[in-house]
Amino acid sequence: MVKVGDEVSNKQVIFRDYVIGSPKESDMYLTTGTIKLKVPEGSNAVLVKNLSICPPVFGYGVAKVLDSGHPELKAGDLVWGITGWEEYTLITKTTDTLIKIQHTDVPLSYYTGILGMPGMTAYAGFYEVGTPKKGEYVFVSAASGAVGQLIGQFAKLEGCYVVGSAGSKEKVDLLKNKLGFDEAFNYKEEHDLNAALKRYFPEGIDVYFEHVGGKMLDAVLLNMRHHGRIAVCGMISQYNLDKPEGIKNLLHIGFKWIQMKGFTHRNYYHLYPKFLDLVLPYIREKKMVYVEDLVEGLESGPAALVGLFSGRNFGKQVVVVACE
Amino acid sequence: MVKVGDEVSNKQVIFRDYVIGSPKESDMYLTTGTIKLKVPEGSNAVLVKNLSICPPVFGYGVAKVLDSGHPELKAGDLVWGITGWEEYTLITKTTDTLIKIQHTDVPLSYYTGILGMPGMTAYAGFYEVGTPKKGEYVFVSAASGAVGQLIGQFAKLEGCYVVGSAGSKEKVDLLKNKLGFDEAFNYKEEHDLNAALKRYFPEGIDVYFEHVGGKMLDAVLLNMRHHGRIAVCGMISQYNLDKPEGIKNLLHIGFKWIQMKGFTHRNYYHLYPKFLDLVLPYIREKKMVYVEDLVEGLESGPAALVGLFSGRNFGKQVVVVACE
Repeated sequence: MVKVGDEVSNKQVIFRDYVIGSPKESDMYLTTGTIKLKVPEGSNAVLVKNLSICPPVFGYGVAKVLDSGHPELKAGDLVWGITGWEEYTLITKTTDTLIKIQHTDVPLSYYTGILGMPGMTAYAGFYEVGTPKKGEYVFVSAASGAVGQLIGQFAKLEGCYVVGSAGSKEKVDLLKNKLGFDEAFNYKEEHDLNAALKRYFPEGIDVYFEHVGGKMLDAVLLNMRHHGRIAVCGMISQYNLDKPEGIKNLLHIGFKWIQMKGFTHRNYYHLYPKFLDLVLPYIREKKMVYVEDLVEGLESGPAALVGLFSGRNFGKQVVVVACE
Repeated sequence: MVKVGDEVSNKQVIFRDYVIGSPKESDMYLTTGTIKLKVPEGSNAVLVKNLSICPPVFGYGVAKVLDSGHPELKAGDLVWGITGWEEYTLITKTTDTLIKIQHTDVPLSYYTGILGMPGMTAYAGFYEVGTPKKGEYVFVSAASGAVGQLIGQFAKLEGCYVVGSAGSKEKVDLLKNKLGFDEAFNYKEEHDLNAALKRYFPEGIDVYFEHVGGKMLDAVLLNMRHHGRIAVCGMISQYNLDKPEGIKNLLHIGFKWIQMKGFTHRNYYHLYPKFLDLVLPYIREKKMVYVEDLVEGLESGPAALVGLFSGRNFGKQVVVVACE
């Protein structure tokens, strides 16, 4: 059992260099450094033991405070926020990046997912940007992922009709059978995305939660309804292309008075308490579920990250680093 | 002098067929029909004499009521709204398309421009969609046109910094010397629009009023600031292309939390009284000016319409059909 002040070994995943294109496992390596389990004298830093982390390097994670110079955090507290891809992290930028966990009757890993950054992303994107109304038509791409699965469930709870797209039969089954989507399809099996959307949305789409960009966005623009809203969370299909694909149907924004809005969960943290008030009861009453793809051990991290870019993950990818 | 019930000749501009690509003068012809100056018994239609009209065929115009079955309009009233490209028009769809002119101390043609549809477009786009704040950076394309010149003046009146682009030296001079834009440039002389925008907006753009689409939009996206707003009124550079140009920099919507919103003046008519309260004093106190490109006679209409697509007009294009 480690204690404050100990100097201990610290396993870390390190990137060799700036990555161009999708990351490969060979872009990363595992190393072991040492860390002193103590915050510097007079700082308001926090020294944490990481429990669960998300694959992206400056990822979000759940951690336990071992030592703290921060006035509102003390040893033993559980927190979620931006941490490191390692066993122990000295977090010096604590402003806005660490939130104390108040409710522990739910799985702790949920604070990397439904109750953490992806949850806030889904909440802000769906409610604040998407401004859904009962009976509206909602489309979600990357629908079985960390955020998409929540959008679908929020949409159903609000009385919307919701269709998701994903990249395998298993994910499509998950959407329809476990997550309650009205319909779902495998975009890899549709050679004409416009036709697919017309099939699932004969009346058009009111709210689109944009994760992928490219051809899917072009097809969606053709199928949006007047006054539709597109919440842009990311366009992962485009990040690692040398040149992004051109979007050809943007004219529809003007024709159909569509709102397309980029956003980040970070702009909405003032709503976190309101968000918890909504979601915690849903979790406790089993009105919402959350599908996690848990892998064990920091050394599984690089493969998990690489898998995200090819859609290999099944639900929210979480790397479990340690038990509490 | 004509009177109600007369059957009179009615000069009209007619389109030969559905136009593909930019319209040519040969797509239209002038003809003379006859019209009875009386609304059908029991209808709530309005029979008007057109005074000034805008070139687009189902264009907006200013007209004088000759006969009316409408409860709120009577012979002698001046109105603006959707009328026909002819001397006299029987307007049967009066809902939302005809607004009674209450203030005649300003030029009547203004109701085809600053006080009509372009004015409402500029007002809604700038204030309601653009939500400008004092000190922000505003960019307007097609800046000397019917709407653009108003955006620039609204922006200055709100304490913003505003730059406009236009397609000739004369228009650039107009923007800088008469319309009060802080800067203006001729986009035809800039081989690198991104570099041009960086020069005029070293701090980036907060509000972009989108008229043109295509390469200009791509350059603007690169130069938008975080939380920027793009009000999409139209993308005239793209309407008559076989295939629209692809927009490559849409990723910035997600990166910089940009809002891009299409709109139409028609969604904002409830604000017309508020709009008049703002703009009429500005006109009377000469705090706003409006540049019109007036041509005389219905027969000048086809050339004026063709000119709009090549940017030949200088200010708001108006066809003066008749005197009051």
